[in-house]
Amino acid sequence: MITSVSNVFKNLQLENEELKVVESIFSEVTYKKGDTILQTNEKVYYQYYVVKGCLRTFFLDTKGKEHTIQFAINDWWISDYIGYFSESESVLSIECITNATVLKVAKKDLDNTYEKVPKIEHFFRKKLERSTVRFQKRILNNLVLSAKERYHLFLQTYPNIEQQIKNYHLASYLGITTESLSRIRKEAL
Amino acid sequence: MITSVSNVFKNLQLENEELKVVESIFSEVTYKKGDTILQTNEKVYYQYYVVKGCLRTFFLDTKGKEHTIQFAINDWWISDYIGYFSESESVLSIECITNATVLKVAKKDLDNTYEKVPKIEHFFRKKLERSTVRFQKRILNNLVLSAKERYHLFLQTYPNIEQQIKNYHLASYLGITTESLSRIRKEAL
Repeated sequence: MITSVSNVFKNLQLENEELKVVESIFSEVTYKKGDTILQTNEKVYYQYYVVKGCLRTFFLDTKGKEHTIQFAINDWWISDYIGYFSESESVLSIECITNATVLKVAKKDLDNTYEKVPKIEHFFRKKLERSTVRFQKRILNNLVLSAKERYHLFLQTYPNIEQQIKNYHLASYLGITTESLSRIRKEAL
Repeated sequence: MITSVSNVFKNLQLENEELKVVESIFSEVTYKKGDTILQTNEKVYYQYYVVKGCLRTFFLDTKGKEHTIQFAINDWWISDYIGYFSESESVLSIECITNATVLKVAKKDLDNTYEKVPKIEHFFRKKLERSTVRFQKRILNNLVLSAKERYHLFLQTYPNIEQQIKNYHLASYLGITTESLSRIRKEAL
């Protein structure tokens, strides 16, 4: 467990005392393939760092259609960030696509840590900058790229996870039907 | 000018010395209605705090169609955040919809300030959390709300700016045609 948390912040060069503070707010949890970590309309307390495995967040619309918002693999973070940052109830679900090991941390514990360990606030500010870039790119790519181009970009962004996820996961991430996805795959062969 | 910068950080209770450091990295700039602050394919150095006026970022797709990504009114921030955070070239344009006064700050100057004035890093971490919530809500709202519902949400989010912006600005923000927008407005009367 201790190794895992220090690994999350490996570039920060935390002092031993700082590392102890940070380790005390993370807990390691193991899930089985298919487990739901968060359901909709639950209070969102945690964000999750993926040690191992593959997870996704998805939104279920009023017609029962799933929209995959994000995948997370090793060394990525995942949560319902609307609920997490605004301390409100979830609109997304978080599901384990494979067996998974995660480190979870509660917002209130992180908020208390920023003052004690400014390097941690620095880390999360930088992480938010990167995720802003990613989310804005995703919005623009949906406007400008064809489904085929979005598929190839997905393969670059999440290497080696295509085998682990179901067709409808990926189709619902790309915003296309599973039939269109099959067609695109055939063309790519 | 001094009043403006302290107003941006009014909740931070900066010491005089801290305020001086922060003031030194901001500059006030005045623009005319219709001015373009940033064009595509320019290196993005700045983000902008709106003191007065209304600005927008938009993306011009390969078919020549504009997509309005964000509006910013008094007390909001605006930039091409992909370019700004990843220190790359702009994909968006920033345009002044009205005469505008902004405070601009360069990424490199802010990055140098975080260590000197940790309260500023705290401020921008919180700002990024709020903008993450806003952007994720926008993605979900586009998936789940009707054009009519998105229009009414826009009126709540940006009160009093409907009169200042052109029909095609708003239509390109809502992802609908100007004809659909006219129809929705008529129904709302």
